[in-house]
Amino acid sequence: MNILITGSSGFVGRALVARLQSPRCPPPLAGAALTLFDVNAPACAMPGCRIVSGDLDDAAAVEAAFAAQPHIVIHLASVPGGMAEQHAALGRAANIGGTLRLLEAAQASGLRPRFVFASSIAVLGGPLEEPVDDDTPLRPQMSYGAHKQIGEILVRDFSRRQWIDGLSLRLPGIVARPRVNTGQLSAFMSDVMHALAAHETYVCPVSPAATMWLMSVQCTVRNLLHAATLSLPMQDSGQALTLPALHVSMAELVEAAAAEYGADPALVRYATDARLEAAFGGYPVLRTAEGDRLGFVHDGDVRTLVRQALGVPVS
Amino acid sequence: MNILITGSSGFVGRALVARLQSPRCPPPLAGAALTLFDVNAPACAMPGCRIVSGDLDDAAAVEAAFAAQPHIVIHLASVPGGMAEQHAALGRAANIGGTLRLLEAAQASGLRPRFVFASSIAVLGGPLEEPVDDDTPLRPQMSYGAHKQIGEILVRDFSRRQWIDGLSLRLPGIVARPRVNTGQLSAFMSDVMHALAAHETYVCPVSPAATMWLMSVQCTVRNLLHAATLSLPMQDSGQALTLPALHVSMAELVEAAAAEYGADPALVRYATDARLEAAFGGYPVLRTAEGDRLGFVHDGDVRTLVRQALGVPVS
Repeated sequence: MNILITGSSGFVGRALVARLQSPRCPPPLAGAALTLFDVNAPACAMPGCRIVSGDLDDAAAVEAAFAAQPHIVIHLASVPGGMAEQHAALGRAANIGGTLRLLEAAQASGLRPRFVFASSIAVLGGPLEEPVDDDTPLRPQMSYGAHKQIGEILVRDFSRRQWIDGLSLRLPGIVARPRVNTGQLSAFMSDVMHALAAHETYVCPVSPAATMWLMSVQCTVRNLLHAATLSLPMQDSGQALTLPALHVSMAELVEAAAAEYGADPALVRYATDARLEAAFGGYPVLRTAEGDRLGFVHDGDVRTLVRQALGVPVS
Repeated sequence: MNILITGSSGFVGRALVARLQSPRCPPPLAGAALTLFDVNAPACAMPGCRIVSGDLDDAAAVEAAFAAQPHIVIHLASVPGGMAEQHAALGRAANIGGTLRLLEAAQASGLRPRFVFASSIAVLGGPLEEPVDDDTPLRPQMSYGAHKQIGEILVRDFSRRQWIDGLSLRLPGIVARPRVNTGQLSAFMSDVMHALAAHETYVCPVSPAATMWLMSVQCTVRNLLHAATLSLPMQDSGQALTLPALHVSMAELVEAAAAEYGADPALVRYATDARLEAAFGGYPVLRTAEGDRLGFVHDGDVRTLVRQALGVPVS
């Protein structure tokens, strides 16, 4: 079994690789040979991993990434929201050009690999009417969301042609990202948790009433691996799924994180940034019938989310 | 006033150029300098036209096409349905790569040009439930439709960023195409009319009950020029519109064309191709509230459609 992971040095990628190489790896994937493809060197060199460093938009690098003939491709790499707004051409090259190049390489392999595409709730855009479900129209409000929507269309079309066996997963806000700036405008969702864990003050750019869809990185990895191994009938191949996610207000998140770490919730002050509140603070009730049916899950409750988010594995 | 037309040597492109250079040109565009961009040489060299021959996917050609600093871009060029299914990489290069390159050149011009993108009802895919309206979800069933949907997303995103002032028009079946094979699977809609006009027998690959959305090329040109000159408030810029179209059965089309040309409708025999019937023969009632509101039109009735389709200008 060969697995190719793009964006393997990123936040989700590192957690995914760690899970694949741990005793908690799901049995069908245990012992799989991994190809790690990233523009950055991997966080740590792991034995038995093939490393490919390069841009998604670089034909030679993509070809090298497919040298091991992967039967599973997990495509996490992207230029994220804030960065894609600022550096539009870079965002298009990676998010559209890179995804297309990767799909073409998967097609050329002739193996019809399972192709798990990390899409994003950014495809939904807004304004969102209550409730959001699998029929909610897509109206992305940022280039990043537009690029992810384009990726979903390509995954669906390549699957229809039976060149790949694809699945796009719309990831919600993933917590807790490390406290480094990688261009995510939604970084505050993680930063507030880090601050409370460290008993530090934090100025939150959205209001206590802001509502978000969140998932811990542990739960995200579980869902990605489920997508990698799930048996899909032909008519479901290529579809895009909004993943289940916890619907949480900032006040609830702060309360749960403060309780978990014995911190004072008053460490968090609020200074609302209208743009961030509009983009990330107005997520309504979420219904994910198709994701639920196919066995995808959220963290269960806010306290578990907080615990898993900062690295304590639960179950 | 400078206008850039891609696909200017194609069926719609030639009719568009002819109208722009005729006394029937709408006044705001009369006397405009035209840049004609096509992979094929123009059907006839017209005085005062700038000709650029090349691929959409060729950076130097696209740069040359923008040399005259157009304030209006009408992007008709594409690799059509049947051809894009057969030659997938070619289809992607032109329909995705080419459209993106053209949009980037429009952005780079700094002029925020009106950018009219010829999309297609192929974005709707199917199966379609009655009635189709502006909220019908897009589920393209061919790569061509997927490519056009991607183009619409790019036009919307580039318009949101105010790099262009875009509008995507979803064109229905355009009649009557010349009797040459250019890769349109829907060519039968035109071929049946040509056959009746010439009093020839014709074997129709869809049933008499097959229903289509049709528009004459004359009416299409009128709508494209309306899109080129329409004043759009910022919130409408970038949107994709399904154009009004006549909802016609094959039996009605045959009857009208036979009457118009004094031909025997029994010249048409039916030998249904299940794939064509499914792809092109099941179009339900169409409602185009947004297109109507913005002043787009269909041919009015089937007889007028037939008359305009074969080149008799009406109005």
